[in-house]
Amino acid sequence: MKKMRAAVFVELGRIVLDEKPVPDVGPLDALIRITTTTICGTDVHILKGEYPVARGLTIGHEPVGIIERLGSAVQGYREGERVIAGAITPSGHSAACQCGCLSQDGAGTKHGFKALGGWRFGNTIDGCQADYVLVPDAMVNLCPVPDGLTDEQVLMCPDIMSTGFGGAESGGISIGDTVAVFAQGPIGLCATAGAKLSGATTVIGVDTIPGRLAAARLLGADITIDYRAVDPVREIMRLTDGRGVDVAIEALGTQATFEAALRVLRPGGTLSSLGVYSGDLRIPLDAFAAGLGNHRIVTTLCPGGKERMRRLLAVIESGRVDLKPMVTHRFRLDDIEAAYDLFANQRDGVLKVAITP
Amino acid sequence: MKKMRAAVFVELGRIVLDEKPVPDVGPLDALIRITTTTICGTDVHILKGEYPVARGLTIGHEPVGIIERLGSAVQGYREGERVIAGAITPSGHSAACQCGCLSQDGAGTKHGFKALGGWRFGNTIDGCQADYVLVPDAMVNLCPVPDGLTDEQVLMCPDIMSTGFGGAESGGISIGDTVAVFAQGPIGLCATAGAKLSGATTVIGVDTIPGRLAAARLLGADITIDYRAVDPVREIMRLTDGRGVDVAIEALGTQATFEAALRVLRPGGTLSSLGVYSGDLRIPLDAFAAGLGNHRIVTTLCPGGKERMRRLLAVIESGRVDLKPMVTHRFRLDDIEAAYDLFANQRDGVLKVAITP
Amino acid sequence: MKKMRAAVFVELGRIVLDEKPVPDVGPLDALIRITTTTICGTDVHILKGEYPVARGLTIGHEPVGIIERLGSAVQGYREGERVIAGAITPSGHSAACQCGCLSQDGAGTKHGFKALGGWRFGNTIDGCQADYVLVPDAMVNLCPVPDGLTDEQVLMCPDIMSTGFGGAESGGISIGDTVAVFAQGPIGLCATAGAKLSGATTVIGVDTIPGRLAAARLLGADITIDYRAVDPVREIMRLTDGRGVDVAIEALGTQATFEAALRVLRPGGTLSSLGVYSGDLRIPLDAFAAGLGNHRIVTTLCPGGKERMRRLLAVIESGRVDLKPMVTHRFRLDDIEAAYDLFANQRDGVLKVAITP
Amino acid sequence: MKKMRAAVFVELGRIVLDEKPVPDVGPLDALIRITTTTICGTDVHILKGEYPVARGLTIGHEPVGIIERLGSAVQGYREGERVIAGAITPSGHSAACQCGCLSQDGAGTKHGFKALGGWRFGNTIDGCQADYVLVPDAMVNLCPVPDGLTDEQVLMCPDIMSTGFGGAESGGISIGDTVAVFAQGPIGLCATAGAKLSGATTVIGVDTIPGRLAAARLLGADITIDYRAVDPVREIMRLTDGRGVDVAIEALGTQATFEAALRVLRPGGTLSSLGVYSGDLRIPLDAFAAGLGNHRIVTTLCPGGKERMRRLLAVIESGRVDLKPMVTHRFRLDDIEAAYDLFANQRDGVLKVAITP
Repeated sequence: MKKMRAAVFVELGRIVLDEKPVPDVGPLDALIRITTTTICGTDVHILKGEYPVARGLTIGHEPVGIIERLGSAVQGYREGERVIAGAITPSGHSAACQCGCLSQDGAGTKHGFKALGGWRFGNTIDGCQADYVLVPDAMVNLCPVPDGLTDEQVLMCPDIMSTGFGGAESGGISIGDTVAVFAQGPIGLCATAGAKLSGATTVIGVDTIPGRLAAARLLGADITIDYRAVDPVREIMRLTDGRGVDVAIEALGTQATFEAALRVLRPGGTLSSLGVYSGDLRIPLDAFAAGLGNHRIVTTLCPGGKERMRRLLAVIESGRVDLKPMVTHRFRLDDIEAAYDLFANQRDGVLKVAITP
Repeated sequence: MKKMRAAVFVELGRIVLDEKPVPDVGPLDALIRITTTTICGTDVHILKGEYPVARGLTIGHEPVGIIERLGSAVQGYREGERVIAGAITPSGHSAACQCGCLSQDGAGTKHGFKALGGWRFGNTIDGCQADYVLVPDAMVNLCPVPDGLTDEQVLMCPDIMSTGFGGAESGGISIGDTVAVFAQGPIGLCATAGAKLSGATTVIGVDTIPGRLAAARLLGADITIDYRAVDPVREIMRLTDGRGVDVAIEALGTQATFEAALRVLRPGGTLSSLGVYSGDLRIPLDAFAAGLGNHRIVTTLCPGGKERMRRLLAVIESGRVDLKPMVTHRFRLDDIEAAYDLFANQRDGVLKVAITP
Repeated sequence: MKKMRAAVFVELGRIVLDEKPVPDVGPLDALIRITTTTICGTDVHILKGEYPVARGLTIGHEPVGIIERLGSAVQGYREGERVIAGAITPSGHSAACQCGCLSQDGAGTKHGFKALGGWRFGNTIDGCQADYVLVPDAMVNLCPVPDGLTDEQVLMCPDIMSTGFGGAESGGISIGDTVAVFAQGPIGLCATAGAKLSGATTVIGVDTIPGRLAAARLLGADITIDYRAVDPVREIMRLTDGRGVDVAIEALGTQATFEAALRVLRPGGTLSSLGVYSGDLRIPLDAFAAGLGNHRIVTTLCPGGKERMRRLLAVIESGRVDLKPMVTHRFRLDDIEAAYDLFANQRDGVLKVAITP
Repeated sequence: MKKMRAAVFVELGRIVLDEKPVPDVGPLDALIRITTTTICGTDVHILKGEYPVARGLTIGHEPVGIIERLGSAVQGYREGERVIAGAITPSGHSAACQCGCLSQDGAGTKHGFKALGGWRFGNTIDGCQADYVLVPDAMVNLCPVPDGLTDEQVLMCPDIMSTGFGGAESGGISIGDTVAVFAQGPIGLCATAGAKLSGATTVIGVDTIPGRLAAARLLGADITIDYRAVDPVREIMRLTDGRGVDVAIEALGTQATFEAALRVLRPGGTLSSLGVYSGDLRIPLDAFAAGLGNHRIVTTLCPGGKERMRRLLAVIESGRVDLKPMVTHRFRLDDIEAAYDLFANQRDGVLKVAITP
């Protein structure tokens, strides 16, 4: 049995590079030889034990690679083709999929809905930080990569870009909107880019790390606010002459950013929440107009599926958005433990790392 | 100067019938002689000092009456015509109005948005519990009542029906949806009727008062749950085989109902909130899938404007919904203090009272 | 090899009952033993050579039956279970499916979109007028039937009801809308029922056959118009005081009904077209306000997939709509040629026939 | 009585500069001193007698100017302020306005809808090609111009930009869409810019005039097609590998462009029509998939109102789109007849002219 390297979760605080058999390929699967992958904030939650997964699971949900082998029932692809798949890999046949809610795919459940059910890689099945990954429901999930694009150019599509753009889309941005994006980490930066791409004419990025604020301006923020220098709520209300923003995007997952996002919303505005929270949230009565302000709060889990990937690749290919600058560091798979160490501790201005087997 | 009777807010705990001059009619106004009006839960909040208004203000925001005099610039109506106006009386010219958000009308503000700004009657201008009420921006707000309908048949249109239906509409109900409505007071009952009218095929009404549960079944609930007899969250999850509901409508304004509404939502579902809350709200992490469940929380303030009123009158006229049973008690304007006493203390199975000057 | 009976297209004018082998079951298929099926207007188009299909193809796309055998990869069902499948059987994995456009499924094409591609039964693969039908992509398409419902109660779900309701849904009906439905054949009747179920408060049904006008009133029409007795455009404009309707549904497929639907639309209204046209359509300049009336023209092919079926079954189960009266005649499969003769010639007040093998 | 110059329609073929009294200011009006205006294609239709208006009417519907006098009931503005108003000036109080359909404003009609009713300037009331224009319902329509913007920078907002962007918006463009825009005159160019601003990643502009194709590339077209050099339908199908476009925008008003737009649509796509047609339109059966392709055809009349203007000004101010290059020629009001001559005959590569009184 052929062996491969894989970053597996061992126990709280330990994700290590181990050896595993290369997986067998079922009729609907595709085996992908990973050429580039990355580490996500969620993986750090797993590492820290904040999000539980099975011991021995291969981590990672952002695959760029080459089709090594196709299942017997898979049509429309060829071995040797370069592809990506989304972090979310829906089944294509659940009720959730048929309702357009692919991320909450409940395949296997009686009714077809399961919270976070579409997220399988590195969560409920082996993931992508390995030499090979098995993509389930390949015809639903594999998307060819245009020849002109490098691995690093498309590395953000499976998760970060899909999530950040999803936050902008769920906000229902109209031409001429003012949008505030709270936190300019990788997801917030993509939300900033997505807001601009959706027609917002004033995009305000909030963070405190100079490198992130600079990246925000590069990717679409018209104005950036350092929340340590000024109170972002007061500053945004000042900038908008007391009107507030049409859409506020939360991209961190804390009470402070959630609450600030709500406080800068105009009546009738939308708070689009992307963060993964770690405790109960509080909605302050005044910021919520006691429930009478026609506010909307919407949450979005990374959209997946091959058509989503095709569209994000089209964005990259069009040159409308360039996410390459987000790859700040590069590691070989053999050095992935060092990559985790750098990324989890946010050292050296890291935004995203590229891992190459 | 002609005088009239009016129920005015005097101080915490005291709304009394007083005498005031009949108001002058400006060029865009209409003076309406009230033939029937009612008391709203919000008026009780005012009475109890929970919602502050100016001393001396006439209370009430649900007018049915006859046009007594039209402003010089008002066209398209005639004196003597029977009309209603919404509880919310938008200006028609604010940015909020042009964005379709009439309830958050910010006429007079720099940017045109103001939380609750569309609510003027009995809030920022004199209201309807009087012999006469002055309707501002009459051409935006006055809607003729078809001859075949009685005052009591249309008495719910200005507020309760518009609000309850608005909750169903904001939920984005699709044909075949399962909808739960938490609390079956007047607004919850209208939300129940609105959910059925929107194509929901299983409407679940939650309350504990037998008369309200019976009214819920009459107005459209397929199933009712007495929350003192069974845990409504567990019961709804059981009834839906663990799937949860597509849309949950909160119609009371408490943490308990808000939280229960969130807990019964399927992934990707919508919590449509109508209640007026009196404290901060808490979103439990688990019920919110840590922010990753594609949930939506939307709030709706009573939609207003003459076209909204016309549509609600069309519902009544079509016979699709009959809200007359909601008028359980009748008082003359002279006895309005007794009416407040009954209504504020929810005595004698009261749902709504009709007040006739 | 086991044999079965099947109604096959032989040549223009001839659909005959023939013998065929019971099909083999692939890994993703399910073999259904048909217990009830029906004939559709589209089948008559095939019979008359107006819609071309391969010689020898089994006709029919409305299956109610029992699972006889499940493919090796099919999970979540059991043999012996009573099920329906939609007339449209999407693959679940095309780009069209992931865009929510299941009817235009382009599985197997490079880009995943193909006009009418979701329609396979009796079009590109063997259909349902037979002892058995093979359902492709079974997990995407099979929907269990609740025990309390008879075959005839659910017989309209696969096509007629899904199409008619789809026309109402695509119209974007709001509470209080006035809707006109042109033609009250089976699809028009379902559109009428769907319009009422969506919150329309005035539904106007147009036809000339008394039985169909009576059925229209039973299923939701508030007003019916016999187009031979009065000009329906003039009458609808009169009924609406010159305003026109918010949504007009075309359910026949002729220039006359299409044009009438356009002529009764208010500015900003929607023409929802369901008919299968047989020639070019003309949009009269005046009825179209020279392209400046904010009109919308939308077309809908029968929505499919198991979740769609589940929702339609929920409508039937709720008692909101009863389509049993649409089954006016019953035939055994052995007599299907007589059933075609009756149905194709619209004799004896036929609406729909039930065929039982 | 003070006099002013005004370009008035005299008879077929003659729009001449004449003298008229400066209009009186009613309570809701504002008198604007025009500083810059322009000529629209519609004005040429009027000139040629293809669109009938009253003799003696002042033509023109694109005002940039200074508030000279405010009506007694107008609040929120000050005399001397620089403003624009949309070509469409809704009343703010019709049913159409309350339905979000401001362009089809039916103020004064019984039901509040009137085809093209929102278009008043130079159609049903005196227009803007004059020293002064009276803006009705000033609080609904006047929008201040930011100091940093020149007249010419904002001159396209009232009509051309609002219309072209409206075509993109009505198309419902999603991130990653491919959009074709047929004709690259002023409206088509703005539709091209609007499509890019809405997230389309491949925008294809079709025309034949080299200067317009160059302008298209400047404003957002990724690809341009000269329809005299290649068949645009075949070329677009080739460019999209047979898939077709998600949204096709028609911006000329001819059978040829309408039909081409329909032929390049993918199943489920949207044809967004902006052109003013001069004859009946034909929908070819095959291009329309016999009515079964889930196609949408939507038309849009220039959106108006002050909030629309504010948003378009925000686009200009953000620098996302620069429409100044569209002003190719400049004339004094005294020379407007020469301007008509140049513009109507499309001489000298004219796109738009600026007229300054």
